[in-house]
Amino acid sequence: MNSAILTIGDEILIGQITDTNSAYISRLLNALGIKVNNMLSISDSRQSIVRALDALFEHVDLAIITGGLGPTKDDITKHVLAEYFNSKKMVTHEPTLLHVQEMCRKRGFEMVESNRLQAQVPEVCEALFNEQGTAPGMWFDKNGKVAVSLPGVPFEMEGLMQKQVISRLQKRFALSRIVHQTLLTYGIAESKLSEVIASWEDALPPYLRLAYLPTPSGVKLRLSCYETASENEIPEQFEALKKFIPDFIVGMGDYLLEDFVGQMLKQQGKTVSTAESCTGGRIASMLTSIAGSSAYFKGSVVSYANDVKVNVLGVNAYDIVRYGAVSQTVAEQMARGVQRLVKTDYAMATSGIAGPGGGTPEKPVGTVWVAVATPSGVQSQMFSLGTADRERNIACASANALNMLRKALAE
Amino acid sequence: MNSAILTIGDEILIGQITDTNSAYISRLLNALGIKVNNMLSISDSRQSIVRALDALFEHVDLAIITGGLGPTKDDITKHVLAEYFNSKKMVTHEPTLLHVQEMCRKRGFEMVESNRLQAQVPEVCEALFNEQGTAPGMWFDKNGKVAVSLPGVPFEMEGLMQKQVISRLQKRFALSRIVHQTLLTYGIAESKLSEVIASWEDALPPYLRLAYLPTPSGVKLRLSCYETASENEIPEQFEALKKFIPDFIVGMGDYLLEDFVGQMLKQQGKTVSTAESCTGGRIASMLTSIAGSSAYFKGSVVSYANDVKVNVLGVNAYDIVRYGAVSQTVAEQMARGVQRLVKTDYAMATSGIAGPGGGTPEKPVGTVWVAVATPSGVQSQMFSLGTADRERNIACASANALNMLRKALAE
Repeated sequence: MNSAILTIGDEILIGQITDTNSAYISRLLNALGIKVNNMLSISDSRQSIVRALDALFEHVDLAIITGGLGPTKDDITKHVLAEYFNSKKMVTHEPTLLHVQEMCRKRGFEMVESNRLQAQVPEVCEALFNEQGTAPGMWFDKNGKVAVSLPGVPFEMEGLMQKQVISRLQKRFALSRIVHQTLLTYGIAESKLSEVIASWEDALPPYLRLAYLPTPSGVKLRLSCYETASENEIPEQFEALKKFIPDFIVGMGDYLLEDFVGQMLKQQGKTVSTAESCTGGRIASMLTSIAGSSAYFKGSVVSYANDVKVNVLGVNAYDIVRYGAVSQTVAEQMARGVQRLVKTDYAMATSGIAGPGGGTPEKPVGTVWVAVATPSGVQSQMFSLGTADRERNIACASANALNMLRKALAE
Repeated sequence: MNSAILTIGDEILIGQITDTNSAYISRLLNALGIKVNNMLSISDSRQSIVRALDALFEHVDLAIITGGLGPTKDDITKHVLAEYFNSKKMVTHEPTLLHVQEMCRKRGFEMVESNRLQAQVPEVCEALFNEQGTAPGMWFDKNGKVAVSLPGVPFEMEGLMQKQVISRLQKRFALSRIVHQTLLTYGIAESKLSEVIASWEDALPPYLRLAYLPTPSGVKLRLSCYETASENEIPEQFEALKKFIPDFIVGMGDYLLEDFVGQMLKQQGKTVSTAESCTGGRIASMLTSIAGSSAYFKGSVVSYANDVKVNVLGVNAYDIVRYGAVSQTVAEQMARGVQRLVKTDYAMATSGIAGPGGGTPEKPVGTVWVAVATPSGVQSQMFSLGTADRERNIACASANALNMLRKALAE
């Protein structure tokens, strides 16, 4: 079972927005056992849409389409699909019309003509009720080809996929499952990793496929199995892999570093806080992005200015002058300071130069001190991240701090 | 001048990573006046790559390709391109080999065989030196079609685009420019916006194209001009637009809310801090993502646990019991508390229920109190975000706080 994902909109083609819908949809389709052959982004013009559908339907039976359903004049997908699937007229989808009236009333917006038009769909399609927005989804099924059109707004598309599309796909297609399993490594470069595990990789059976997925918090290894019969093999293969890289495996499953750290804290009944300078709240934000994090995360101090380090965290002002804010002792004092202030078992602290400016010959951009305070002491480490890319340095410093905490929790 | 962007890798097709490279590349190409007709993501198999290149080169003269150049066994792009462009043999790119040796030495990694192989490129291409990684880029130019192959790691691709590709494109193609200009609105829904500005939009000349780009921090309006002669018209058109939506325009230019707020703080010589509960450090992280933010951002307290609100920020414990942590008075006390503690002119505070759990009938998930402390007092507002999507609620609450601060700064 093969599919394609089609995203429509000039905002994607000129790079004003990054398409995150395709990744979301492909995760769901893969979990259902539907392979995604390709993802295509095109302009919202009639010709582009028709040409793309013709080309995609040569190789696949299912196209999930997002975008081009908004109330504004540059959104033409609905009318092109009506034409493509030979729909003679538009009909009003009553549940949508009522829902739009209700949404406008609740939010205190006036119901406008473009809202009313959004409740209309081509006669030949099945309208998919969109709880979270004004544009319904549409399900076209003709000559063995299925096209599903969804709004481009991510949370509307997500709601429709979960509540309307998945169950229809399961009914419509006879599906077998593709199984993926993932393992997260940290602290080993992709090239070195591939060298170290080469003999293991070479011995994999042909129906298991390995992929290396570099992320800001380590390289993920993913095994994909395209035959149901052998899916039990993946855990065994990963078990065998552990012998090759015992020091670099964070854990099993498609999780991020902050998930693994959160799980460990929860299991051990411990709490954590952060004191952040160069990471500017990023570590706190990563930790609290996880639902239920209030069980182990209590709070943070972002001490960007030195007087906040001194007055709030109790860092010795003289040490800042003597060693600089980016130094081992300041990072360690920040970690102990927030651990004491917020009363947590563990604490992470960062102090560094995120860039692109602010570097010196002794402390170039990308120099970061990370400290982890534990119930029994404090550990610290300096990292030379080696780039002037601010976003990358913030992400790497945050991941390094989480990984140091993970190691401390594993001891 | 038309182009296509091709991203190669199963990790994209199964949704393990979101393709951000295409958006980056398309922004650069558009700025050069090269239109991006489509973006395509495909599997790293020989057949997919050959089929995609054949299809793309029917309509465009330039394809920028990313991915599939890593040192591991699932990366085959280089060999398929060698075959596609009839290259008889591989040759070693000496600057790359020396660079890889140096990189390995600096990072204390052993130089492995796969690193050595990365320095090899097909004879027919021009190798593009990659300062930030081990795999060089490749420039193929044959029968009027140009293919540029770059590594998939974003910062390596970005370095190569900036330092190697842009100048070669300018030399190779006779380029005219497309001009885009953007304006950020906040606080008005897309459908209402299109209704309010309909008469302005209808009167736009045919060579100007309007797009609505919804973002977590407001709807962006973008005008694109495809003829050089008329590019001066865009500022005049935006000026005319101001009369239609005077209360909803944040500012001109393709900036985020945090950029506009940062610029205002800098111009006014004022400082800011945050006290964050449900946003968990997100606002601090947004503010500090901007280089130079230390000029106005001093620090934050993430007060996730109530005792941090009380002990660090000085919130009245009795008020938390009486009114709940998600209440007007607690948000206001948090804002004033951090303003006093960190000694800033302004402060933002958030207290709410990000979800998906934790809601009550009186305070459902998505209920957020935002307070802004100014030099002369404190303002607060309750938002009912109306979804159970944790990420969306955190993003919206953060944007609402920044917008309230923006309004306070504009007064």
